[in-house]
Amino acid sequence: MKTMSDSQQVPVVAIILAAGFGMRFDPSDPKQLVSIAGKPVIEWSIEAFVDSPRITDVLLVVNPKVYAAVERIVDDMGADKVRGLIPGGETRADSTRAALGFLAQMGIPGDAKILIHDGVRPFVTPRIIQDCDDALNASNAATVAVPSTDTILIAAPQDGAGAGSAPVVHAVPERSTTWRAQTPQCFRFDTIRSAYERAASDENFHPTDDTRVVVDYLPGEKVTVVQGSDDNIKITTRADVDVAELIAPRARRVRTVARMRAARGGE
Amino acid sequence: MKTMSDSQQVPVVAIILAAGFGMRFDPSDPKQLVSIAGKPVIEWSIEAFVDSPRITDVLLVVNPKVYAAVERIVDDMGADKVRGLIPGGETRADSTRAALGFLAQMGIPGDAKILIHDGVRPFVTPRIIQDCDDALNASNAATVAVPSTDTILIAAPQDGAGAGSAPVVHAVPERSTTWRAQTPQCFRFDTIRSAYERAASDENFHPTDDTRVVVDYLPGEKVTVVQGSDDNIKITTRADVDVAELIAPRARRVRTVARMRAARGGE
Repeated sequence: MKTMSDSQQVPVVAIILAAGFGMRFDPSDPKQLVSIAGKPVIEWSIEAFVDSPRITDVLLVVNPKVYAAVERIVDDMGADKVRGLIPGGETRADSTRAALGFLAQMGIPGDAKILIHDGVRPFVTPRIIQDCDDALNASNAATVAVPSTDTILIAAPQDGAGAGSAPVVHAVPERSTTWRAQTPQCFRFDTIRSAYERAASDENFHPTDDTRVVVDYLPGEKVTVVQGSDDNIKITTRADVDVAELIAPRARRVRTVARMRAARGGE
Repeated sequence: MKTMSDSQQVPVVAIILAAGFGMRFDPSDPKQLVSIAGKPVIEWSIEAFVDSPRITDVLLVVNPKVYAAVERIVDDMGADKVRGLIPGGETRADSTRAALGFLAQMGIPGDAKILIHDGVRPFVTPRIIQDCDDALNASNAATVAVPSTDTILIAAPQDGAGAGSAPVVHAVPERSTTWRAQTPQCFRFDTIRSAYERAASDENFHPTDDTRVVVDYLPGEKVTVVQGSDDNIKITTRADVDVAELIAPRARRVRTVARMRAARGGE
């Protein structure tokens, strides 16, 4: 394993989370390894960050069951920026913590930029990664999101109602204020570490989202929104794989153009 | 035009809104009329309600630009339950108000069940329509929704920040409480009418969603959630049309089975 990039700029580290097993997916055929247009989902995700001139280092958080397969993919890619594969924890938050602990051990500076990405979002674009890097020059936390085209309801089971009873709507936020979070979610290293440290002392907190840890535990910290993309989908169900096959040719074209531009020294 | 069904049961009226022109769609090729698996979007929607044994009457709210085309579709379908095509208003709320006014003029009873559906959600299922009808026996308002698999962010432009500046995240609701609203949205006639009457006196209120009118203006009224379906998508962009083509064969099978079951007198 190599040490972190020691160039003059601060490190810009992509943490790719590939530790989960979607409950709605066949466990014997993990969604990270499902092939989209001939390429495993996780390879699409790794490629996006390895290709980006903005990213200096990539760290993979991997489920033990897919470790060997992902290691082989990385070897075949010849992806020098990938600094390591570490085992994930039981929950998403455990996996993020494991990655942050690893980076601390590697001696990463506190102002390093950290982009945490779902390994099952294969089509993150070069433009999104650039915008994430830029956003962390203006605030210590940022997250990729798209405006919700659906109205969002806040609903919960009625107090005292039996299990299985219909949830009741409590609020309908103004649609123009509702966004669907995607990834990467982006932080200066010190910011996300101290948010997780504060959250650790609250045993009732089980975050499903890294941005929420900052919003809830560092309320003074401004979290900006980076415009995502409708193509930046999460592969959760079999139906998503069919949709991904529709997006793949477009994603391939976008990446080819970005690579040609980078080869000419531009972005 | 026929009068409303005068059977013993209360009328169960589907209002199908087909008055909008998606701004992200080609105005010369309205999304209501785009063909999915050889059938216009609006015909898929009308068929779902006409086929349902639960629905007694269907009312279409139609943009003048597509009026003739939709009328021809209805004629060709031989859809006797369709009681009328009325022109829509400028906004979604205007269209809903126009439909409610029409129903009042027709002398519909206050306890009639009203299912308001987006005409561009072609794949509403027989099961969803049944569940909507049933839900209105337990509460005066209900809405179809699916749990959000994405984390939802509440974000808005920063106070005092210039136009075009990035929105800032204000809150991240617990994911298990966030739902993506679909349609139908369902109400007893008296309930939705009085909600709209109260909303009318608030000139700052521009609802994009009928459920919100009830939640905000009749806070004592319980609004329950009816489980939707991932197939019950809204056609908003060209990419949605490609996804719809993937869903269409499944939707066709589901409807065929429901028709056979209805022919045998069951559901």
